[in-house]
Amino acid sequence: MTFSAADHAAMARALQLAALGLNTTSPNPRVGCVLMRDGVIVGEGWHRRAGEPHAEIHALRQAGEAARGATVYVTLEPCSHHGRTPPCADALVEAGVARVVVAMDDPNPLVAGRGLACLRAAGIATEHGLLETEARELNLGFVSRMTRGRPWLRLKAAATLDGKTALENGVSQWITGPEARRDGHAWRARACAVLTGIGTVKEDDPQLSVRDVACERQPLRILIDARLDVSPSARILQGEPILIATASEDDARIASLSATGHRLIVLPNAAGKVDLPQLMSELGMLGLNEVHAEAGFKLNGSLLREGCVDELLLYLAPMLAGDAAHGLFNLAALTRLEDAARLDIRDLRQVGRDIRILARFAADLPAKR
Amino acid sequence: MTFSAADHAAMARALQLAALGLNTTSPNPRVGCVLMRDGVIVGEGWHRRAGEPHAEIHALRQAGEAARGATVYVTLEPCSHHGRTPPCADALVEAGVARVVVAMDDPNPLVAGRGLACLRAAGIATEHGLLETEARELNLGFVSRMTRGRPWLRLKAAATLDGKTALENGVSQWITGPEARRDGHAWRARACAVLTGIGTVKEDDPQLSVRDVACERQPLRILIDARLDVSPSARILQGEPILIATASEDDARIASLSATGHRLIVLPNAAGKVDLPQLMSELGMLGLNEVHAEAGFKLNGSLLREGCVDELLLYLAPMLAGDAAHGLFNLAALTRLEDAARLDIRDLRQVGRDIRILARFAADLPAKR
Repeated sequence: MTFSAADHAAMARALQLAALGLNTTSPNPRVGCVLMRDGVIVGEGWHRRAGEPHAEIHALRQAGEAARGATVYVTLEPCSHHGRTPPCADALVEAGVARVVVAMDDPNPLVAGRGLACLRAAGIATEHGLLETEARELNLGFVSRMTRGRPWLRLKAAATLDGKTALENGVSQWITGPEARRDGHAWRARACAVLTGIGTVKEDDPQLSVRDVACERQPLRILIDARLDVSPSARILQGEPILIATASEDDARIASLSATGHRLIVLPNAAGKVDLPQLMSELGMLGLNEVHAEAGFKLNGSLLREGCVDELLLYLAPMLAGDAAHGLFNLAALTRLEDAARLDIRDLRQVGRDIRILARFAADLPAKR
Repeated sequence: MTFSAADHAAMARALQLAALGLNTTSPNPRVGCVLMRDGVIVGEGWHRRAGEPHAEIHALRQAGEAARGATVYVTLEPCSHHGRTPPCADALVEAGVARVVVAMDDPNPLVAGRGLACLRAAGIATEHGLLETEARELNLGFVSRMTRGRPWLRLKAAATLDGKTALENGVSQWITGPEARRDGHAWRARACAVLTGIGTVKEDDPQLSVRDVACERQPLRILIDARLDVSPSARILQGEPILIATASEDDARIASLSATGHRLIVLPNAAGKVDLPQLMSELGMLGLNEVHAEAGFKLNGSLLREGCVDELLLYLAPMLAGDAAHGLFNLAALTRLEDAARLDIRDLRQVGRDIRILARFAADLPAKR
């Protein structure tokens, strides 16, 4: 299948629109749509949040009668099922569009292709695969949940150039500068949930909320606390209720935390810790697409060792802390370099005075069709 | 002083020419020269190696009679003294040039300004400071030696994303990929000397020569070996004689190493180690401009602690080695982040699959005039 330059330009615009929903569409995917007739854009739309109209509907409304005979560029295959809103495929048929180009098929293997089949059954020309890589990247969390049943887990950490997250006495505020910290909040904002461990709560008492950047909906906060050691006065327990994953079966503690509105999941593994891979499945079932983890040496190590981490978001401050300071990840000692976890650098830049590295575990990227 | 766009273009070309001498001019600076008359380049030149003509002479020869009335753009103030070659200032006067623009004055405070004064005395218009920052950067080693009496020390290290240089069992080959290793050799090639420690020699037995990239002259190799523990069969002792800095006064060992052509400097400090700051002064007196250090945890730490390092050249491979692996630098434990050594990122890029960071200790950059 070959696409014209005009096709590329229209889909690129649809992706731009889709990205406007970066922080708000969850659990839905970010989707954008452009209607083009006679080389002119006659309608544009993007999905803002669950329960509100899909991108296609916004674009059709804007186009009105001009939708008849138009080409539709949409970043994700239109839905063909009744969810919280009626099927977009039906609306496109009704509007009389001539051709539908999608960037990617629905990643849910149970419904993939049905939307396009509906359209073709109504005599509409369909094509797919235009800027597919970009479309999948924008919804990597949604793709992960649909294809693997678990969220995309991004692990954020900040360290010195020599790989230290805190001095020997625990002092870690602030290793990175204000620009990097604000950038970190922007990554929190796009996630469906921000996850941390009891160690970090005890040491830093974080709020774990999005600040410093505009944020319409705060991500769910998740605390991994195997023994339910969290203090009732911890800042993470204030404000909106949070999700606590524990291995404890202390009914009194569970009841008292539940009574204050928090949700608890009891998921012990054989070692008496929280079963992290099982937790990832539970988070998938809760409809979480992207999870942003900010934890400490131990939980970071556990998440990595148990294969839960999809990518690292690592800020490095241009300073040296020395070897007595705390390291990044509690990982098993290796005897062969071949056994080291390997990643691919996906993005590299300076943020303020600091360095930001986005690195992905190569094998964990959901494969392209 | 203001310079025209044509002035900038001519000096930029002179800097390009100067950079052709990156690996060969030592102990001299890298210098380029452009002669311009009536908006046309009539002569170009660059200094290739000590003992051969300076950049100005090459450019004058190329211009011939066209030099009369020309403007001369030269990246460093022309010399006014008889060195291994006659003074360039005299040659410029003789050629009848009309105007001389220099990027930077001679950094040697004892002769700075004399070249320009000679020219002005002969009625030639002079200006300075055009693209001075770029000119100083190209010769930061020469500037360091002239202003501080010691070379510019660049410390190269390679580590994993979590700041580890080798596994617990010492395995370190290869953390970085072939592109990064080749890039490392290009940095060795521009240095006047490559320095390492006895720890690295015992563990890795490096040749410490420039390979993988074109190299007209191999840098001097320097070994820091406080107790003269180096084995006669070590690869660093093969080929060209090396410089060994020691704290040992074992005359028999000294005599036997000297007998095989190597040069020894005995520089003990109070702790029985090599006095590193003193060594830097000695290396300055030997005419070394840029020194490239590739050492291990201990010597890297000592060089940093004793204020000998001007910049870090750090390659980070996208892999994780875990906390049991070896860290980068043996530095004193800190109790306050304010006391951490701080750097400025000067360059950040990917080299093959790896990351390359060039970071400079802010305070150590020789100040601009």
